[in-house]
Amino acid sequence: MQRWKLTIEYDGTPFAGWQRQESGIPSVQQTIEDAIRMFCRNEATLHVAGRTDAGVHARGQVAHVDLDFGRRTYAPFEIVKGLNACLRPHPVSILQAEIAPPDFHARFGATEKLYTYTILNRSAPPAMDRHQCWHIFHPLDVDAMRAGAAHLIGKHDFTTFRAADCQANSPVRTLDRLEFECVPSDGCGGMKILMHVQGRSFLHHQVRNIIGTLVLVGKGKWMPEDVRRVLELRDRAQGGPTAPAQGLSLMRVKYA
Amino acid sequence: MQRWKLTIEYDGTPFAGWQRQESGIPSVQQTIEDAIRMFCRNEATLHVAGRTDAGVHARGQVAHVDLDFGRRTYAPFEIVKGLNACLRPHPVSILQAEIAPPDFHARFGATEKLYTYTILNRSAPPAMDRHQCWHIFHPLDVDAMRAGAAHLIGKHDFTTFRAADCQANSPVRTLDRLEFECVPSDGCGGMKILMHVQGRSFLHHQVRNIIGTLVLVGKGKWMPEDVRRVLELRDRAQGGPTAPAQGLSLMRVKYA
Repeated sequence: MQRWKLTIEYDGTPFAGWQRQESGIPSVQQTIEDAIRMFCRNEATLHVAGRTDAGVHARGQVAHVDLDFGRRTYAPFEIVKGLNACLRPHPVSILQAEIAPPDFHARFGATEKLYTYTILNRSAPPAMDRHQCWHIFHPLDVDAMRAGAAHLIGKHDFTTFRAADCQANSPVRTLDRLEFECVPSDGCGGMKILMHVQGRSFLHHQVRNIIGTLVLVGKGKWMPEDVRRVLELRDRAQGGPTAPAQGLSLMRVKYA
Repeated sequence: MQRWKLTIEYDGTPFAGWQRQESGIPSVQQTIEDAIRMFCRNEATLHVAGRTDAGVHARGQVAHVDLDFGRRTYAPFEIVKGLNACLRPHPVSILQAEIAPPDFHARFGATEKLYTYTILNRSAPPAMDRHQCWHIFHPLDVDAMRAGAAHLIGKHDFTTFRAADCQANSPVRTLDRLEFECVPSDGCGGMKILMHVQGRSFLHHQVRNIIGTLVLVGKGKWMPEDVRRVLELRDRAQGGPTAPAQGLSLMRVKYA
């Protein structure tokens, strides 16, 4: 038995999210576990760094799994190639497989996660990247959003930005980074606003609830200071709406 | 009757290409003409800057069309909004509508077209952008590709890179620019190679045949000088294969 660390890319569009569903609706976890069964003849359970919701994408998700090949050994590139062959035609790709120490844990060992949220800010609806962005017609004031975001950096009680069904023991989290990047989306004045959100761990819906709140600031409905005010109220009902899942991607997970 | 210039984004994946098909297979042209009929009650014909093949995308295609609204007038933003509403749920979006002079011609007036071709160069297959790239497993030597591309810049007889069914009168074209941009595609060493190809006009399949040939150089099967050699042979049979359509996007079209 050997522990493997897998780095994974997936398009979240057709999936009910990462986690295996009782209902049998396709999940990323089940899709990869089925591929492992096909390739390795192992009934293995994947442990993931961060469970993503339905529609959320990943360009660098990490999971670990214990595999038993009996007397056979596989090189990492054989695991990658074999699993990817068995994953076809699903939009899930194993980018890297590495042998990990027996005590490596994809979730508990993670020291940093980076999510990127994409807003397409223009009047015309998206055609090319329509499953990978939140389309907002109203021109957003990115400087105001930046000012609002500044109130969230650091260690806080994030109850205001926590989903009702969040199972974490504590609502306290440390937000290390929330940066904005604006790039032209086309030659007609449209903008893509990329928000890079980094921390050790996040509450359920925390990133999407933060983005939904900052968009209220960007639209001028809220002042940047309102972000601090609702944070201090520690009440989900005072926060902004949850941003759509499809704009969110888990970019990478780091370990010590 | 007024001439309108439309700037258009589309995902080429579900279409038989730009051009209306006798067979009735969905084309971008027909999809937009249907939307014009629905919104404007006009039986109008679109004239496009560059007809794209099946699977080729556009982020800045240009077409012109003559519309008659009788006594009514529409502001450009109303045309954009109205057409986009009628284009749903197709992955086609009107980015901009502008009133054009009566002698404006989307095809004959174009002075510059920019295409970008995307190669995903890594062992793992694409999950996120699988309809927007050519996946090449073999590591490519981009410097060699650049050296090969240098032989194509300028005015040449491009018969070697011209599709058999190309209807242009002359095989002579001027390639103004062929530049390479390498960006990491993930945190595991994968690379995206973007090739920016610019000229006033192109022969049928010219860009894809050039890319297919340069990939032979990138794989080390051809030397950079072989590109000049086959160019001078003026024989399509001597050129490299046609790169897949899905990696290609028409980025923008310029006018005097």
